[in-house]
Amino acid sequence: MQKEKNIAIIGSGLVGSLLAIYLKKRGHSVTVFDRRQDVRTVEFSGRSINLAMSNRGWSSLRKVGIEEEIRKLALPLDKRALHVNNTPLYFQKYGKEGEAIYSISRGILNRKMIDLAEEAGVVFKFEEKVWDIKLPEAKIYTGESEKGVWQEYQFDIVFGADGAFSRVRHKMQRQSRFNYSQNFIDVGYKELTIPANEDGSHKLDPTSFHIWPRGEFMLIAMPNLNGSFTCTLFLPFEGEVSFESIKSEEQAEQFFSTYFPDIMQDISNLMRDFFKNPTSAMVTMKCFPWTYWDKVALVGDSAHAIVPFYGQGMNAGFEDILVLDNLIEEYEDDWERIFKEYQSSRKPNADAIAELSYRNFIEMSSKTANPAFILRKKIEKHFAEKHPDIWVPLYSRVTFSDKPYAEALAIGDRQRAIMDEVMKLQNVDKIWDSLEVENYILEALNKTAKV
Amino acid sequence: MQKEKNIAIIGSGLVGSLLAIYLKKRGHSVTVFDRRQDVRTVEFSGRSINLAMSNRGWSSLRKVGIEEEIRKLALPLDKRALHVNNTPLYFQKYGKEGEAIYSISRGILNRKMIDLAEEAGVVFKFEEKVWDIKLPEAKIYTGESEKGVWQEYQFDIVFGADGAFSRVRHKMQRQSRFNYSQNFIDVGYKELTIPANEDGSHKLDPTSFHIWPRGEFMLIAMPNLNGSFTCTLFLPFEGEVSFESIKSEEQAEQFFSTYFPDIMQDISNLMRDFFKNPTSAMVTMKCFPWTYWDKVALVGDSAHAIVPFYGQGMNAGFEDILVLDNLIEEYEDDWERIFKEYQSSRKPNADAIAELSYRNFIEMSSKTANPAFILRKKIEKHFAEKHPDIWVPLYSRVTFSDKPYAEALAIGDRQRAIMDEVMKLQNVDKIWDSLEVENYILEALNKTAKV
Repeated sequence: MQKEKNIAIIGSGLVGSLLAIYLKKRGHSVTVFDRRQDVRTVEFSGRSINLAMSNRGWSSLRKVGIEEEIRKLALPLDKRALHVNNTPLYFQKYGKEGEAIYSISRGILNRKMIDLAEEAGVVFKFEEKVWDIKLPEAKIYTGESEKGVWQEYQFDIVFGADGAFSRVRHKMQRQSRFNYSQNFIDVGYKELTIPANEDGSHKLDPTSFHIWPRGEFMLIAMPNLNGSFTCTLFLPFEGEVSFESIKSEEQAEQFFSTYFPDIMQDISNLMRDFFKNPTSAMVTMKCFPWTYWDKVALVGDSAHAIVPFYGQGMNAGFEDILVLDNLIEEYEDDWERIFKEYQSSRKPNADAIAELSYRNFIEMSSKTANPAFILRKKIEKHFAEKHPDIWVPLYSRVTFSDKPYAEALAIGDRQRAIMDEVMKLQNVDKIWDSLEVENYILEALNKTAKV
Repeated sequence: MQKEKNIAIIGSGLVGSLLAIYLKKRGHSVTVFDRRQDVRTVEFSGRSINLAMSNRGWSSLRKVGIEEEIRKLALPLDKRALHVNNTPLYFQKYGKEGEAIYSISRGILNRKMIDLAEEAGVVFKFEEKVWDIKLPEAKIYTGESEKGVWQEYQFDIVFGADGAFSRVRHKMQRQSRFNYSQNFIDVGYKELTIPANEDGSHKLDPTSFHIWPRGEFMLIAMPNLNGSFTCTLFLPFEGEVSFESIKSEEQAEQFFSTYFPDIMQDISNLMRDFFKNPTSAMVTMKCFPWTYWDKVALVGDSAHAIVPFYGQGMNAGFEDILVLDNLIEEYEDDWERIFKEYQSSRKPNADAIAELSYRNFIEMSSKTANPAFILRKKIEKHFAEKHPDIWVPLYSRVTFSDKPYAEALAIGDRQRAIMDEVMKLQNVDKIWDSLEVENYILEALNKTAKV
């Protein structure tokens, strides 16, 4: 058992709430600060992409005993449904039988996590803004405004769980030798909704992750428990077809009818959301170090914000907490060691999922509808099914396993090199499921294994 | 002639002062703010690497009519002097006859630039700290402390010339879609001094840039007008031979006598400096955009800080000002256009010199003493002398020309690929000046030109 510490967590989002539950259950005194209102008392903002909980997320919830509670809020999706104009709906299974990602609303999940943390005895201080932090002393300063009167709090340990634009990291960033980068992509996103049928049922298959890939842009839709779908439109900020180019209702209607004719029945809803909801930006943020002595540590987006195209942002953040807790078990009261091991083991994995997420941004929008890409996936799947012990597809390794992201990236790169060669084989579209192709891959695997 | 504007420049360093002179001569009202004391009234800090003024720097001083004044403060260096243990001193010419870089003390230069700006009519406000800036309004806020009472100033245009840790950029950085990165290298530096002989003469050749390459670390020395040399020791922060590993006087003496026996006569001086002067970090900082409407622009290190290994930091910053002034001539009162063109033309060049400087960090410390590297340079030089119209060495293009850095990087990469192949030729160390090698390079150039 660890010695009880007085711990502050800045940020009551998903990762902050989960960390609070873990620490409380280990016997610490835990206070969570958030500059915003209690999410349980506000209407949702219309700027959230639905979450896709997968293996790492569930593992992290399971260890602290709240997996079953959360499962009740989620819908399993075992496949992609591809909406390509003038082509029948096409399905791609995500993994093996029984493997699925789980659609869950960010707002609903966050409210539940805070409820669970409060039940465990965590204290929440909402609408209390942290303006400064003394890193070596674990002191934080809160107040109405940056220039107003501040209140000082003394803690033993402070965690920054305050997201991509973290105030805690902001303070760490002003140290010498702190590495940092933030890179925005030129594509923005907007939340739209497809309402339920009148009888409360879903208008599209509720066991699929729906994608309308359109080259430079795409629409996705994930089901909610109430029969609606939360859609996200990913579209360049500027350019020929872009958020900038859609200013009037006419332009919006033209846009939806041209590119998304199969959901035109909900056009009035889509149009209202389009002009009501904000357009948001997406950023990849990396930094190092993540910790300061045994006093301060960053978790989740404040340490590693990624673009959402692998559905791993929350899962990676939850896994941070699982890793931290495993280290707490190992090193008990040696917080300096816990923090050192946490950042050195976690950083390469955070970098890897950042890279994979960025690559998926390219892949999802421009390649999912491409026949060569579909063939490639088919060959890979066929081979993986025959040789599950030597070929785990990259997506499965990221989504349905607990293997380190960095390992997934490295193995994925090797697989990609092999598939690049396979796709050059003569008549590969005809012989894709032949013994010849299978042996080719086996031989290639054999060769690279020796390198 | 432009309409007179009321312009603030934040930062009275080299680039800020030069910009002030340019803008004043164009008829604007110019106020320079600096949070620090007037550099003319303080002792130097012992944390400065001597500067190497080269072609771009001189061009920028020439256009505003202050080149000759500054030349008086500088010493020409036309070659490297390589100090390798157990090997005679070896010299490498930098360029063609008459080409040289110029050693100049940062402190002396900065004092002179401020004098010249004041003579031109620029107003300086030292020890006035800028804490905030309203970007769309070009308003700045100064005061004793961040939380104290602030004074508001309204300007037409504000320039951030406040260095790698710019407060102006810091404000821009909090906008959405602002890209930013800071990456520290694991090597630090410390200023040391080799004093003049008693008769005021230099102890080492004063027309050379002296290097003691030692693999993981190195020492450099550049002459001053007063007979002394400003040395810079570049050494890893941590590791076997590192700043961290040299704690006692004994360890320092051991270090200098092992690695730098030829300057042991000055050991007492070196040791005193070693323990008196701070150890500084080096960072590559990139960001974008550099401007906000027609209101705010970043120049010099605040827009693009680089590691010092190509001696181009100041030169690149001065060139920013030259480019800005050329655009002012072209677009007159259209400041929005001026700023747009400035950032879009300058950004790729800033990225290129950042990359080249980082590569030189690797090259200078680990390769300059390497026989294969010396042979390679010899072959390149030989070929360049015979074919000066088709082969300008990378170093010369960066240092002795006004050609864009991005072009230098691209052409340098092509040359490198060719030289990689040349170095694989059989017996190249024997036939390096043969017609065979010459023709090989000519043919390779011919081929890549067609790509």
